[in-house]
Amino acid sequence: MTEADRTLIQEKHRQLDALLPGLAADCWLVLCREGSDPAALLVAGFAMVGEAAFVFTRDGQKHAVVADYDRAAVAAPGVFDSVTAYSATSLAEPLSELLARLQPQTIALDFSEDDPLCDGLSYGLWRKLKRIVGDDLESRITSAASILTPLRAQKSPEELRRLKQAVALTEQILDEVGAFMRIGMTEREVAEFIKDRQRHYRVTCSFGDGAAVMCGRVGLGHRLPTDARLEGGDTVVVDMGIYWEGYTSDIMRTYYLLREDESAPPAEVQRRFAVARDAVKLAAAAIAPGKRGFEIDAVARAHLEASGIPPYSHALGHQIGRTVHDGGALLAPLGRRYGERGNVPIAAGEVYTLEPVIHGRTEVDGVPIGPEKDIVVMPHGAEFLSPPQEVLVCIR
Amino acid sequence: MTEADRTLIQEKHRQLDALLPGLAADCWLVLCREGSDPAALLVAGFAMVGEAAFVFTRDGQKHAVVADYDRAAVAAPGVFDSVTAYSATSLAEPLSELLARLQPQTIALDFSEDDPLCDGLSYGLWRKLKRIVGDDLESRITSAASILTPLRAQKSPEELRRLKQAVALTEQILDEVGAFMRIGMTEREVAEFIKDRQRHYRVTCSFGDGAAVMCGRVGLGHRLPTDARLEGGDTVVVDMGIYWEGYTSDIMRTYYLLREDESAPPAEVQRRFAVARDAVKLAAAAIAPGKRGFEIDAVARAHLEASGIPPYSHALGHQIGRTVHDGGALLAPLGRRYGERGNVPIAAGEVYTLEPVIHGRTEVDGVPIGPEKDIVVMPHGAEFLSPPQEVLVCIR
Repeated sequence: MTEADRTLIQEKHRQLDALLPGLAADCWLVLCREGSDPAALLVAGFAMVGEAAFVFTRDGQKHAVVADYDRAAVAAPGVFDSVTAYSATSLAEPLSELLARLQPQTIALDFSEDDPLCDGLSYGLWRKLKRIVGDDLESRITSAASILTPLRAQKSPEELRRLKQAVALTEQILDEVGAFMRIGMTEREVAEFIKDRQRHYRVTCSFGDGAAVMCGRVGLGHRLPTDARLEGGDTVVVDMGIYWEGYTSDIMRTYYLLREDESAPPAEVQRRFAVARDAVKLAAAAIAPGKRGFEIDAVARAHLEASGIPPYSHALGHQIGRTVHDGGALLAPLGRRYGERGNVPIAAGEVYTLEPVIHGRTEVDGVPIGPEKDIVVMPHGAEFLSPPQEVLVCIR
Repeated sequence: MTEADRTLIQEKHRQLDALLPGLAADCWLVLCREGSDPAALLVAGFAMVGEAAFVFTRDGQKHAVVADYDRAAVAAPGVFDSVTAYSATSLAEPLSELLARLQPQTIALDFSEDDPLCDGLSYGLWRKLKRIVGDDLESRITSAASILTPLRAQKSPEELRRLKQAVALTEQILDEVGAFMRIGMTEREVAEFIKDRQRHYRVTCSFGDGAAVMCGRVGLGHRLPTDARLEGGDTVVVDMGIYWEGYTSDIMRTYYLLREDESAPPAEVQRRFAVARDAVKLAAAAIAPGKRGFEIDAVARAHLEASGIPPYSHALGHQIGRTVHDGGALLAPLGRRYGERGNVPIAAGEVYTLEPVIHGRTEVDGVPIGPEKDIVVMPHGAEFLSPPQEVLVCIR
């Protein structure tokens, strides 16, 4: 565990200290094991191998029960009042004893129908917990989302430092892509170049295979690069996120491949790009603590519609952090697809993508444009983590 | 999706075809979303972003309901009878309709108290499913572990090819570590060298930070490398797993740092190493389809005890595959810590680690030894994926 890792987990625990008095239950219980519950990394700074339980009481006590081989890493940052290790026995006994001592009547657990990152309790562990606590457990629980969501969403100084580093290096690689890309290359060749640069900088990508390199003719979406060759008149959207010390960027840049007889993109392509760019800027300008995601989404959506461009089918933006879709509030329209996630007040310290993507295929309904940037919500409004893309990057 | 990826998912679906008639329910339902349920990757070959449901009936029907942006990747290998995409609506409507058509009375779901990899259904999605299916759901479910466990555990030809590649490259890097390591270096310096070699070979590690480099004096365990300097008389255990096309190795090699006046490790250190090595070989020789994990664990454990060495506190071995702890049967003692996982019959096609680790600290109770190797269970018995380590690798 590095000094910075220790700082980070201590910062998150100071946030947790401020949140615990508002807990809508006597305690918050994180019950997890290898590969389960992303909340574990947030509260312990370490991905457990054995079964583990973390109990946080409303009055500020913090207890951990972990397998012996996980003990040292959990104890290292010094954030828990007690770290109990089990070996020959199972987790059930020490957890039972801890709960018998704390006597919580109500327990907040990590479950949510809307937010995967607040839904880390598995159904199997739920059944195990019910046997430990008793058959009345279902009537004594509440979702921990109200504490877990702000804890994850509001980035601490060390988390923001990592996110900014991730964004800066992403922009650097996207600059290099612009110098490398040429007409006649395939999407795959460009993607291989990006993977090489990521290796050079000793970082890994957070989605896709290096990056999504999407020639407009083939279309945008969650897809891998193809052998389609880039031609004059194409836009190419590169969508990339890289991890910097565990935190990820998520940026799109749009390039335009000039035809032989062109010195600039066609006027209509430039107009469409400007619409997307302005949608990013208008959305950023509308963001402030207390606003709701659906209001911000509506600003970008309305700008596209007013410009005669069919709006994107997804949400305007999502949070980023330890994961590329970092849970919590979304800049999303209201409605069933995103549940209530577009109706949550935006808070300072949250980091969002803004991605009013324009779909469409060359010479049918116009070229696709991907203008995604990342912003952090400050008390006075949004601040870009890197400057918006002002013009199409033209490639000859 | 590469041709090999397509082959792999088609192989897994042929295995699934053979397993479905034995399903202890009318259908198996995988309900998942971003970051949840490792079974999704196994049956769809693709990590979903939106909520998704996969329904497999006992009579062999296979249906997928996925978000529109996930549709193309799920449909690509051609293994599903139907792939329904939802967009404006939520997953609930098309899933309701599908279940209304199939009319399953009993449903197998991904939950397990013992095995994290069979416990991918989250409690939040369980609650959502209960609203879709009805309040009697709890009385109509069974664990899908009996079909999911063999599907994951029994490696297909393409999966075995990837595992063997991962192991071969791991051994290659461990050879290079032997040529690089010198007295006076820190654990961290050796770990940085390993990370460099992994970058060179364009692979990433599957646990730890590159590798666990554990100088005997500091002790073994799940820990990160320290600034402790390697001295004459130390053993150094390097524990490493790397991904090759999504499948991971897990190998330990033990090095001995010769003191200035030594030409070979002390007799007692050599004896301890030989005990660990023989425990690996004896365990491998005892493995056969139908045997149970606890029997194999007992062979290695008894050999250590007969040699006057306190046995390891963990299990002798675990399965590897898409994850470094790949679920299912363990070569583990019976008892509460590992539940029933040491009591499952071993089957051909399963790949296990064998790691009868000897703990202990230099000059107190002897140096630690890590002799871990990976084997595949063949119809006639175990086959090593790479040869056992015969002697300590001596470093001057």
